[in-house]
Amino acid sequence: MGGAELENLIGLFSRLPGLGPRSARRIVLKLLREKEHGLMPLADALRAAASSVRTCTVCGNLDSSDPCAICAEPLRELRICVVENVADLWALERAHVYRGKYHILGGTLSALSGRGPQDLAVAPLLKRLEEGGIEEIILALPATVEGAATAHYLTERLRRFSVLISRLAQGVPIGGAIEILDEGTLATALRGRT
Amino acid sequence: MGGAELENLIGLFSRLPGLGPRSARRIVLKLLREKEHGLMPLADALRAAASSVRTCTVCGNLDSSDPCAICAEPLRELRICVVENVADLWALERAHVYRGKYHILGGTLSALSGRGPQDLAVAPLLKRLEEGGIEEIILALPATVEGAATAHYLTERLRRFSVLISRLAQGVPIGGAIEILDEGTLATALRGRT
Repeated sequence: MGGAELENLIGLFSRLPGLGPRSARRIVLKLLREKEHGLMPLADALRAAASSVRTCTVCGNLDSSDPCAICAEPLRELRICVVENVADLWALERAHVYRGKYHILGGTLSALSGRGPQDLAVAPLLKRLEEGGIEEIILALPATVEGAATAHYLTERLRRFSVLISRLAQGVPIGGAIEILDEGTLATALRGRT
Repeated sequence: MGGAELENLIGLFSRLPGLGPRSARRIVLKLLREKEHGLMPLADALRAAASSVRTCTVCGNLDSSDPCAICAEPLRELRICVVENVADLWALERAHVYRGKYHILGGTLSALSGRGPQDLAVAPLLKRLEEGGIEEIILALPATVEGAATAHYLTERLRRFSVLISRLAQGVPIGGAIEILDEGTLATALRGRT
């Protein structure tokens, strides 16, 4: 029904995060209804992104320039915020609350998944610190067991540099209802009360 | 953040049905992580679909051949199931319960949206009937006021052909809980009890 090209296209869409066969069909039908304004621009944008977007060799961000626009910005503060992935970097940039640099770790340490320090961008981070000029490292890692283990490991490795090491505060999220919070968050929020 | 190409790509994805900025970012990051197995095949599939998929000049279905595979199938029964759009045709084909032909109307009559008979594929449907050989027309239009008005209009226009005209049965959907059904469905199901 619809030919091999259509079925292939629907199959590819249905494997994207958050999509399934039903939403993929809906998207493909809409794209085909608007070939000139929907389908072709998306195909072109995918190709443009594929050829232009690369991983920043300094911080690991995705950008059409290398070093990325953030690393190339001269007025960024002399701090490095260590995040797990690009999505976390983007979330912090969207919040407009941080004006320093970043470092993407590419994951967290995980005994379960067999991810050790050599699988993360730890060496490039140490290299950036050896080059000097950095005053603070903010560990913005997920508030999970693995995130905490990774932060602990990095703190040990960074100890030899004269750099301030901090972590994000933990507690009740803004707008978060107390009743739906897990015990861990509540305990942390209570302990850290101000 | 990420350059113009990335922002453009995220913008295009976020305008697709069912997606927003957050899901679009998640999809684009996943595609970029797997350029060779994610991004490029999708760009290629979009181009392939754009160049190969066309609207069947007989029934209005989307397919890489014209007439579409369904219209070209010699063993289809001499019935035409009239549906609003391609998604409805696909849903009926997936159900494997109908072995006839189709006709896509391209919408329903709507005084509110100013959609008259000339905006729908009514004339091509009449032409197919004039060519003869069709024994039944099944009006599989949405169970809405506009769907009913369209079915009523088509019934009038098809009266001059010696063809059986039927509609889909209405009632409680399989697996549907009685308590969540609207009054209209309940009334229809009660009236049509068997």
